[in-house]
Amino acid sequence: MKIQSLLRQYKTQIEQQLTAYIEPLQAPETIKEAMLYSLQAGGKRIRPLLLLATLHAFRKPMDIGISVACALEMIHTYSLIHDDLPSMDNDDLRRGKPTNHKVFGEANAILAGDALLTYAFQVIADDKNTSPDVKVRLISELAKAAGPEGMVGGQVADLEGEGKTISLQQLEYIHRHKTGKLLQYSIRAGAILGGATEQQLTLLTAFADYLGLAFQIRDDILDIEGEEQKIGKKIGSDVENDKSTYPALLTLDGAKRKLRDHMTEARTLLEQTEIDASLLHYICDLIETRDH
Amino acid sequence: MKIQSLLRQYKTQIEQQLTAYIEPLQAPETIKEAMLYSLQAGGKRIRPLLLLATLHAFRKPMDIGISVACALEMIHTYSLIHDDLPSMDNDDLRRGKPTNHKVFGEANAILAGDALLTYAFQVIADDKNTSPDVKVRLISELAKAAGPEGMVGGQVADLEGEGKTISLQQLEYIHRHKTGKLLQYSIRAGAILGGATEQQLTLLTAFADYLGLAFQIRDDILDIEGEEQKIGKKIGSDVENDKSTYPALLTLDGAKRKLRDHMTEARTLLEQTEIDASLLHYICDLIETRDH
Repeated sequence: MKIQSLLRQYKTQIEQQLTAYIEPLQAPETIKEAMLYSLQAGGKRIRPLLLLATLHAFRKPMDIGISVACALEMIHTYSLIHDDLPSMDNDDLRRGKPTNHKVFGEANAILAGDALLTYAFQVIADDKNTSPDVKVRLISELAKAAGPEGMVGGQVADLEGEGKTISLQQLEYIHRHKTGKLLQYSIRAGAILGGATEQQLTLLTAFADYLGLAFQIRDDILDIEGEEQKIGKKIGSDVENDKSTYPALLTLDGAKRKLRDHMTEARTLLEQTEIDASLLHYICDLIETRDH
Repeated sequence: MKIQSLLRQYKTQIEQQLTAYIEPLQAPETIKEAMLYSLQAGGKRIRPLLLLATLHAFRKPMDIGISVACALEMIHTYSLIHDDLPSMDNDDLRRGKPTNHKVFGEANAILAGDALLTYAFQVIADDKNTSPDVKVRLISELAKAAGPEGMVGGQVADLEGEGKTISLQQLEYIHRHKTGKLLQYSIRAGAILGGATEQQLTLLTAFADYLGLAFQIRDDILDIEGEEQKIGKKIGSDVENDKSTYPALLTLDGAKRKLRDHMTEARTLLEQTEIDASLLHYICDLIETRDH
């Protein structure tokens, strides 16, 4: 199928380009190995794919989005490395492989995360295909999505909520920030690079908000119903770690209903943008039904 | 004295502006407190002062450099928070106060560092006084100075060198990267914002290289001859931790001689730039003779 093979091609490009960004770095081998280890650990590459799929909807070539797509994946990867640390989630496995600190030690894992985060901004700043004013906007929005008002803020709220009963509102705050802001940025960045109108950008931002929440609800459902081998980590860890989840607050059926509702809202908004959104619709289906 | 009061005024401005950048953030209180705790822990503010002093040498007003100056201090502060962590230097005190992880816990300290690093790029990107092309250059150079090819690379090399006998060349690699690149950036950023010619930029970059090495030699000497109360941490820790230092490789007298030689080279280069470098000369004197 055309869409599937296009997405596969995007994924290959992203993975090749990620490696191509790291290998020429003039840096100690240890840090390059630690950065590459986690970048090459696989994963769905959902953020860069969302960016490139949005760009595609505006009929723009992939190469104008590849640097920001890779920067996004670097920032997502840094966040996983730091989240897995003993003082955070203390995870030994990620995507079926030992976590970064298990292989390189805690100090190098922290530094590999720091390096990926820092380098992500350089990758965007050094992009030759994009004008300075667009790059400044992309950098500002990325920092906001990833920093204290975005992903880092969500992680802090998540840690504070551990072992406590929290409201649905608090749970949504956590997910909107911890995973939502960066997913939303993926789509906004694609739209900005694609030359979206302000109205299209507003619609796509709202679309991304529903998509981000749906993504997290599916994650919570998979922690109950998923297969360990496909997910690459132990299931049932949310209950074990006393984490607040959608199924815990809404029941499993309630969570499934909310997932469907959010996806319906997302798809309706996507229709309204009047762009060629076939790839984005396909990714919506993947997110709703994914098994890992 | 005019120079002293100008530097004091700069320092006050930097410290006020740092707080003003953090307070309005829409983020969990914990992360804002942890960010502010380390930003407000004092220190010499040598990097932002070098930037503003360089800008002054080009007769440019302070306000065009304040955002980059604050971004620099945020990145320096994040590096201290992460360096102090148990898996790195495991320090309990910094500038006479408990380190960030001692107050906020390890997870929040890691996240406060991540937040400061990320936000630093946003602060530059959002600056209203600077053109997009200059901002892109400043962001690219900052990421390079702070990332795997700069400060993070130096920290990795430093950790790898612990407990080993290393050569003077390796020691200089560590310092040029761990502290040198960011100090050099301070001066380059001031020069770029000040409208330096390419020749002036080259001279100032070489000046900053000597200054950075001299700064580190003075640090090593203070760890032997300094007063704990003034430094705010235990002296003799380099010997205790089996760290390679200039005095260990060159004897204390040899290190002092090298410090003088580097400062002479630095001052000679500064003369050649033909800028009004009175503030920079004054900071050179401070770096050469500082007792903390």
